[in-house]
Amino acid sequence: MTARGPLGAIDELIAALGVLPGIGAKSAERLAHHIVRCPADQALRLVEAIQKVRDRVRRCQACFHLTEASNPLCSICRDPERDQGLICVVEQSQDLMALERAGSYQGVYHVLLGPLAPLKGIGPDQLTVDALEERVKAGGIREIILATNPTLEGDGAALLVHRRLAGAGIPITRLARGLASGSSLEFANKEMVADALEGRRTFS
Amino acid sequence: MTARGPLGAIDELIAALGVLPGIGAKSAERLAHHIVRCPADQALRLVEAIQKVRDRVRRCQACFHLTEASNPLCSICRDPERDQGLICVVEQSQDLMALERAGSYQGVYHVLLGPLAPLKGIGPDQLTVDALEERVKAGGIREIILATNPTLEGDGAALLVHRRLAGAGIPITRLARGLASGSSLEFANKEMVADALEGRRTFS
Repeated sequence: MTARGPLGAIDELIAALGVLPGIGAKSAERLAHHIVRCPADQALRLVEAIQKVRDRVRRCQACFHLTEASNPLCSICRDPERDQGLICVVEQSQDLMALERAGSYQGVYHVLLGPLAPLKGIGPDQLTVDALEERVKAGGIREIILATNPTLEGDGAALLVHRRLAGAGIPITRLARGLASGSSLEFANKEMVADALEGRRTFS
Repeated sequence: MTARGPLGAIDELIAALGVLPGIGAKSAERLAHHIVRCPADQALRLVEAIQKVRDRVRRCQACFHLTEASNPLCSICRDPERDQGLICVVEQSQDLMALERAGSYQGVYHVLLGPLAPLKGIGPDQLTVDALEERVKAGGIREIILATNPTLEGDGAALLVHRRLAGAGIPITRLARGLASGSSLEFANKEMVADALEGRRTFS
């Protein structure tokens, strides 16, 4: 493949793109070629956006949702209109954002930071359950809503949280199974999310 | 959407990713969240790969394929083993690389830089046909092989090149069309079947 030999820079870009989720070998090649020939300002904007997101975005010290580096607490935790006595536990910030888009939830959140995936090295210790326990111990919480994904990993995470908080004497509910098993909360539409919230039941 | 308000950096990254080819709104969001939480070195590698490709990759002065900035001619044009008398005309560098992967072509190339797409502002003047004409005028070319894509745009570009070079007295050929090797007649469309019938050869 004489054509590729000296094009190390392209190959490196294809490799760097290929590790992104959902980007296969063909997509990575197509994207790399686009980045080579697109207008300079488009490439610059992408580079700066990546750098900015890495520089400025941090995790909220209370709920682990995303927040700007200048704010230790995210906009939801800082919002006086949100019910701080209601904690909705999600796996990822994307899940939180899907719930926010639906617009029917007025409490706060707790982001576990990842599905429980022992085979990928994400065990109970990698999740933010300790911090959640601290929040509950600090008092003022009336209900914990488990909103992990309706998957094996999500159910595992829900079970883990339930075990850890069962002794606290606070009602623990979970989202109704209006969500299709095996699907992802990230892609749920408004109605599905609203139904799931409305039909939540006591976790047992 | 209180959760997104202050997260301008994420939104900017989603926007910068969303203009890439084949990346829809959902994919852009997913990629942005991945870039936020992936290891720092992975994000850095991506940024550096984009910067490197923009800094170091240029167009070959002869054929317009990609080349490192330090080499005005690409590796194929510089290769003494390649037949410089045979020019294969392609729309994009990706097409060239697909032909190279097949490994059966030993001539050189000419990259037109884009399909002919008048509606997108890519007219005959945006293609590198002038430069191709200069190469032909310089002499030593025995055959031009048109390898544009079997699409309306590709056929348009092939027609354009043919018109411009027809007077040069050099054989101009185009790639054979028919059934794709390994495909099934059952799933062939009208055009494929018509091409296959029209190009039929004596069985031997």
